[in-house]
Amino acid sequence: MKSGVNIISLLTDFSFKDNFVGVMKGVILKVNPEAKIVDICHGVKPQGLLEAALLLRSAFHYFPSGTAHLVVVDPQVGSKRKKILVRTKNYFFIAPDNGVLSLALKEEPAIEIIEITNERYFLKPLSDTFHGRDIFAPVAAYVARGLDIKEFGRKIDSFQVLELPKVKITSQSLVGEVIYIDHFGNLVSNIDAKTFRNFTKNKIFKVFIKDKIINHLSHSYAKGLTSKPLVLIDSFNYLEIALRDGSASDYLAVEKAEKVVINRI
Amino acid sequence: MKSGVNIISLLTDFSFKDNFVGVMKGVILKVNPEAKIVDICHGVKPQGLLEAALLLRSAFHYFPSGTAHLVVVDPQVGSKRKKILVRTKNYFFIAPDNGVLSLALKEEPAIEIIEITNERYFLKPLSDTFHGRDIFAPVAAYVARGLDIKEFGRKIDSFQVLELPKVKITSQSLVGEVIYIDHFGNLVSNIDAKTFRNFTKNKIFKVFIKDKIINHLSHSYAKGLTSKPLVLIDSFNYLEIALRDGSASDYLAVEKAEKVVINRI
Amino acid sequence: MKSGVNIISLLTDFSFKDNFVGVMKGVILKVNPEAKIVDICHGVKPQGLLEAALLLRSAFHYFPSGTAHLVVVDPQVGSKRKKILVRTKNYFFIAPDNGVLSLALKEEPAIEIIEITNERYFLKPLSDTFHGRDIFAPVAAYVARGLDIKEFGRKIDSFQVLELPKVKITSQSLVGEVIYIDHFGNLVSNIDAKTFRNFTKNKIFKVFIKDKIINHLSHSYAKGLTSKPLVLIDSFNYLEIALRDGSASDYLAVEKAEKVVINRI
Repeated sequence: MKSGVNIISLLTDFSFKDNFVGVMKGVILKVNPEAKIVDICHGVKPQGLLEAALLLRSAFHYFPSGTAHLVVVDPQVGSKRKKILVRTKNYFFIAPDNGVLSLALKEEPAIEIIEITNERYFLKPLSDTFHGRDIFAPVAAYVARGLDIKEFGRKIDSFQVLELPKVKITSQSLVGEVIYIDHFGNLVSNIDAKTFRNFTKNKIFKVFIKDKIINHLSHSYAKGLTSKPLVLIDSFNYLEIALRDGSASDYLAVEKAEKVVINRI
Repeated sequence: MKSGVNIISLLTDFSFKDNFVGVMKGVILKVNPEAKIVDICHGVKPQGLLEAALLLRSAFHYFPSGTAHLVVVDPQVGSKRKKILVRTKNYFFIAPDNGVLSLALKEEPAIEIIEITNERYFLKPLSDTFHGRDIFAPVAAYVARGLDIKEFGRKIDSFQVLELPKVKITSQSLVGEVIYIDHFGNLVSNIDAKTFRNFTKNKIFKVFIKDKIINHLSHSYAKGLTSKPLVLIDSFNYLEIALRDGSASDYLAVEKAEKVVINRI
Repeated sequence: MKSGVNIISLLTDFSFKDNFVGVMKGVILKVNPEAKIVDICHGVKPQGLLEAALLLRSAFHYFPSGTAHLVVVDPQVGSKRKKILVRTKNYFFIAPDNGVLSLALKEEPAIEIIEITNERYFLKPLSDTFHGRDIFAPVAAYVARGLDIKEFGRKIDSFQVLELPKVKITSQSLVGEVIYIDHFGNLVSNIDAKTFRNFTKNKIFKVFIKDKIINHLSHSYAKGLTSKPLVLIDSFNYLEIALRDGSASDYLAVEKAEKVVINRI
């Protein structure tokens, strides 16, 4: 891991309406005036742990080695849920221990997990309602500045894990579901490219979603019609249902958890 | 105040839909390429002076000493309202003189107030409709760069003041109201922690809001039920009505100005 | 053009809901850790090429000379549309070749146009669905770092052009239309200040929009009534219909493409 990169990424469910994100940035700069702070996003729906975990998983490895990824989606703030700091081969992660890091850490395993307990690095007075400001922001600022992570607490062995809905595979069909809907209305499924290709083996297939059937894979959004949904492998390597120049979500009236069924023919 | 910190915070009602905020940042960097610009927030409702004043008050002191706080909520742009630059013990504030700074300046008093009039530091041609770009952004950029604030105009003695709705206290009851609703639907009141504690004195109390009664103080959002609103002292030290994992605003159908009544028993 | 300014502006239709913008920033910083990244805006409506072109046109020249403007509104991503890098007197522009740069380049002409083809500077694997991340972000990062633009591909002679709706002028009337509605509900027309002044020549005129007639030019939003729309020349030098402390769009129930008619009397 490069040291001295001093980049902190932020991912929260705070939106930009209030001053929560701005306050966290102020706190970071007080500790670490040279930090480069980059928003991953703040539009996660309130308390949307799985959504945040997915957005972190597909974003974290695009950042420079040494980046400290700070994730605050924290419905249990003020309870006994732990606060953790995780070191991997290339990154640091700072978050409440509620599973929000777990999908990213499946891609890049944890090398060291610290339970954050050293109050020396917390804001005073410490609130029970905004640990993003009082604990996570200053800790991330010190981590990015290069402070030894052992400073923040004792080593622990595990962290909470979120499970994605599982894909079910039988001889004839593969059944997944929509797990994320982006700003464009694209329907992201839990079917990854490898699982899809292992199942279809370049043979003929049909994708069923709601009352629609789609029978081939497109390579880009531009290839479709504006009145017929298309299926493609998206830029994060998952099967996605989309609509050219439109919202597949609106067009199909599909929400999260809608089934996506693939049949071999 | 530390000099050389060169941080500018931004708080506006411009949203991120248009290019207004981006243009202001461009203008700042033209004058002061080394400035660190930090968004406090831009989601203040259009012309929401009181809202902006509240968001500034609870955010400003989390920033490093020396930060220049630039606030542009400016419904009277192009009229005779003044443009002011205020120095306090730790910060600079730049804004239209419409009260938007007044709640922050109650917490950290003004030491010097300058009416911004020196056109040398304005963009040319100067518009009557976007002083955020033409006046406030370049002035903030010069202030953050360390220019003597006397350069921008003459010293004046006062600034416009916004008044928050007052809390009414009788022997039996304390009556406040909801003055801000955040992104999570938390209902922030005008009752500060000290006023609340002085009134309840650790005795039994009841909080009435709409048709609900809440009879104890929670320490965190996580302690409540998802079907019963809770009361807590929020991270900015005001009494707040919230709902675990949900929106108290939606659940109670409460909008700003709704009364919050506390009775001693 | 100043070299070494190392500023990259970003304008997309990605919104802040997803992690697309954050991922692009991560990619930029991996190539160019010292880059200063500034959001122009990300609230362009999905596939809103003309909207993005307008927002770029009114923003680009407020940035320091040497800025690399990166625009990603890219409905044809993965098709044969070109990817271009344009050098003007003061700036670099990087975008898909779909006209999104054309209104800005009318104001500041292209000096050199490069078709971006050199895969050496692309992310691998290269997706067909997110060139913002895989091509435009790293190319902008190298450009801002000072790499010779000839590195990215061969010189070409032209780029796609978007046409704004034309203003129609007869002896008695000038007919334009609403081409953009901002966050405040201000109605921006395609009638520029010069065209307006040449037509009205400081004489009496009437502006017709929907069922309203407005017969003079205001100098600022603050001069109007809250129940009567006003007409002004906005800060980007276009004729705009607005409502004091309110939304002209809501008040008049006007959407884009609504006619704006000016009669001389």
